[in-house]
Amino acid sequence: MNAQTHITQRGRSRRGRLTRHNAPQVIPVYQRRKIPAYTLLDEAALVRIEAQADWILEHVGVEFRGDDTALALFAEAGAQVDGVRVRFEPGHVRQLCKTAPTEFRLHGRAPARSVTLGGDNLVLMPGYGSPFVSDLEQGRRYATLEDFENFVKLAHMSPALHHSGGTVVEPTDVPVNKRHLDMMLAHLTLSDKPFMGGVTSAQAAEDSVAMARLAFGGEFLDQNAVLQANINVNSPLIYDDVMSTSLRIYAAANQCVCISPAIFAGAMGPLSPAAVAAQTLAEAMAGIALSQLVRPGCPVVFGSFHSSMNLRTGALTFGSPEANLTTMALSQLGRRLGVPVRSGGGQITASNAADGQAMQDSADAMWATLLSGGHQIWHAAGWLEGGLVMSYEKFVMDLDHCGAMLKMLQGFPTDDEAFGRDSYAEAGPGENFLSTSHTLRHYTTANFEPQVPRGGPFETWDENGRRAADQRATARWRQMLAEYQPPDMNDSVRADLNTYVAERKAAMPDEWY
Amino acid sequence: MNAQTHITQRGRSRRGRLTRHNAPQVIPVYQRRKIPAYTLLDEAALVRIEAQADWILEHVGVEFRGDDTALALFAEAGAQVDGVRVRFEPGHVRQLCKTAPTEFRLHGRAPARSVTLGGDNLVLMPGYGSPFVSDLEQGRRYATLEDFENFVKLAHMSPALHHSGGTVVEPTDVPVNKRHLDMMLAHLTLSDKPFMGGVTSAQAAEDSVAMARLAFGGEFLDQNAVLQANINVNSPLIYDDVMSTSLRIYAAANQCVCISPAIFAGAMGPLSPAAVAAQTLAEAMAGIALSQLVRPGCPVVFGSFHSSMNLRTGALTFGSPEANLTTMALSQLGRRLGVPVRSGGGQITASNAADGQAMQDSADAMWATLLSGGHQIWHAAGWLEGGLVMSYEKFVMDLDHCGAMLKMLQGFPTDDEAFGRDSYAEAGPGENFLSTSHTLRHYTTANFEPQVPRGGPFETWDENGRRAADQRATARWRQMLAEYQPPDMNDSVRADLNTYVAERKAAMPDEWY
Repeated sequence: MNAQTHITQRGRSRRGRLTRHNAPQVIPVYQRRKIPAYTLLDEAALVRIEAQADWILEHVGVEFRGDDTALALFAEAGAQVDGVRVRFEPGHVRQLCKTAPTEFRLHGRAPARSVTLGGDNLVLMPGYGSPFVSDLEQGRRYATLEDFENFVKLAHMSPALHHSGGTVVEPTDVPVNKRHLDMMLAHLTLSDKPFMGGVTSAQAAEDSVAMARLAFGGEFLDQNAVLQANINVNSPLIYDDVMSTSLRIYAAANQCVCISPAIFAGAMGPLSPAAVAAQTLAEAMAGIALSQLVRPGCPVVFGSFHSSMNLRTGALTFGSPEANLTTMALSQLGRRLGVPVRSGGGQITASNAADGQAMQDSADAMWATLLSGGHQIWHAAGWLEGGLVMSYEKFVMDLDHCGAMLKMLQGFPTDDEAFGRDSYAEAGPGENFLSTSHTLRHYTTANFEPQVPRGGPFETWDENGRRAADQRATARWRQMLAEYQPPDMNDSVRADLNTYVAERKAAMPDEWY
Repeated sequence: MNAQTHITQRGRSRRGRLTRHNAPQVIPVYQRRKIPAYTLLDEAALVRIEAQADWILEHVGVEFRGDDTALALFAEAGAQVDGVRVRFEPGHVRQLCKTAPTEFRLHGRAPARSVTLGGDNLVLMPGYGSPFVSDLEQGRRYATLEDFENFVKLAHMSPALHHSGGTVVEPTDVPVNKRHLDMMLAHLTLSDKPFMGGVTSAQAAEDSVAMARLAFGGEFLDQNAVLQANINVNSPLIYDDVMSTSLRIYAAANQCVCISPAIFAGAMGPLSPAAVAAQTLAEAMAGIALSQLVRPGCPVVFGSFHSSMNLRTGALTFGSPEANLTTMALSQLGRRLGVPVRSGGGQITASNAADGQAMQDSADAMWATLLSGGHQIWHAAGWLEGGLVMSYEKFVMDLDHCGAMLKMLQGFPTDDEAFGRDSYAEAGPGENFLSTSHTLRHYTTANFEPQVPRGGPFETWDENGRRAADQRATARWRQMLAEYQPPDMNDSVRADLNTYVAERKAAMPDEWY
């Protein structure tokens, strides 16, 4: 018996017969997990992976290229420094990581937007770093500053995103050496959620901290994290000087560094999930240790960006079962390390369109991340083509899925009201519950409701031109941008920020690469 | 840093640079879960749900309409029978269920195809009951016997499906009262996997058992389950006489009955996940109890078909967070009852096309089912429009996702070979692992590989007409049907089956409703 016929045969609730559209839709903001994290690996497996990470750090080591300050800090801490290669006795790096906080606040410009990283808290954020954008009307094209601003606005408006991200898209119409200034300005003025600063040069890192200081005040900033930095490891086992220098600048300012090894299994490390998990742990611990040598107690996130490849063709794959297993293992390993986890999932895909493959890949990666207890979920909205493209349509489709997953993580109550015993006095065997008092008390809040319109029954869908989900999504992001309202900002702070950007831009010739 | 640029910037593994296409693809058959089942609810919550099920059975009761035999069996067992309403003391029904086996074999015509229901075993099967089929070349249309046979063939060929299902689609070109004969013949001759028999009338049930007896032998059938029956509860809280009579016929023959309450939250029961879980448990236990009163020890499956609705419009929704929570709870409740679980997930959606919504809904429902420890997964392939349509394209897309999920459930080894320490002697910091001995030893088996072609990089995808995933899937099911080979069958058994069908058809006038 299939679903529609099952219901319509008994004439209870033909589609469209209920028309209770008048009640207002509520989109709650969920920030905590209320269901248990999934435990993939047992103690013995976790210990073996940790031992392999120690083996890598002892026998292979990690290179910090071009950063004598970092090398000196490691040498002073007792690591074995040989040229740019740093090796550690087993357990040493983990010991150095111990001063990092298990849980900390990342402040938004509006206090109500501040988030907690760690524990049962959840921080979802949009995609990061795409040079291209696409929408179904204008097609695929290089991203501009206007696109960047649009995605900051969309993230600001999204109850399912807790964080504005960083380089949401590359503003390719701005000179490379000045992009970070416009991006900082957009994050600080168009949204009041937490965000990430620039890391593409020491100067970009310093400008980011300086602008945040203007917005938050120097004293507040020294004691509280208001910026996050994306420190990518040049996997396998290399920190380049730009990354380790930016890491040191953010750490010295007591701002959050997220250390993200980037491993495609079989390319930047051995091909097995266990090997990728171990190498990710080794690489990340080395960076976290450096942050703690710079400023003990500085807030960090144990990040990762990892996935699989088709090892016959070299094509990258996302949301694969092997990558999802690694993601789940890394959540456990990060909790054991005692720091918040950004695990490699998110709504990621290699697909070129927001089609069935894209949303399946994305859902798979999202389940792996969220169920295993990841704290910060990067790339939760918009990502296509392995991150080359930020799609306006996929962005709003992903928002719906973020909302659904966050709702699921709230679990379900088993109190008396949940069981609705009174409704059985109103509806017995064979009768329907659509109009019981219990249903009427709860129907506006019981279920998550997506914002991208559904297609409706076949006949309606056919009359409306048989539009696939992505085609129905265009109207949604256009509506959001039309309804956007900027958050409040103090005029003198805004003036200070504008002056800073103008002066810094005037001081540098444009550089386009 | 995004994925593609990350790799190509360092010139390691541009897409398409690897061309190791020559090694044969292996599609393994995975039948067991090797990772732990997810535990959503704690003991206190489970006990409360079970107590609510007991409350329903005691204070409301279940109606068995038009089946005096069933009522007499319940009365004799000590239940309180009042007209067609049967009520039970708390704990009584659960006690009656205790003779049902926790784990049992369901035999395929080929011994190698037999499956185990219960424990860590997994049984995936195609969609059930669609009156329509669709493909992207011929469009949406009423299903015919040819379509039915096609889907039996496709399921037979699919390593990711362990079972052929039942009324995979409705063969609407065959008279209603004769369909079960053609369906049984197709299942028995075109596949050698386990399957489901007819339940649409007492005669259909008896014919199904009789034909299975011809194929398996009467003595074998009396001692072993070779057929499964889909007993839908007419929720809320009603068994109609067709269902309870079919249940008794299958149980008397020692064949497996799967009892599936069918509850859309807010329509056939109160709207909360906890209430749906409790009512599902109550309804299913009543049917399981009946099966054990007919023949103690007869194999059963604790089934459910449940989902949510948009309570403003009446539109059915699938893969929703609320439904997924219910699915996860039911897996736990079924394990506590001590019988195999068919939980309400599968790859289900209300979408009209195999688009982003369809595959996202399907992935969500599949994770809920598989991770929570469901044993038998119905509707794992093909379903669209809430079950009204079986789609050829979605069928093969779903097969890929079944395969990926089954691979994930194998977990990952943490033995020495998994860590690949030897590869670090071949590839140090900054070097690539694509050609290490470790990679070359494992690259053909390391990763799950989907059979529906991927789109490739943007330029290739663009040159090929920007085909979405469903458009790339058509070639795959056509290829499978072209390569289909029927399984072996004894000529005299085949002749007996043909004779049975011919005689039964000749004995009845056609009925079309």
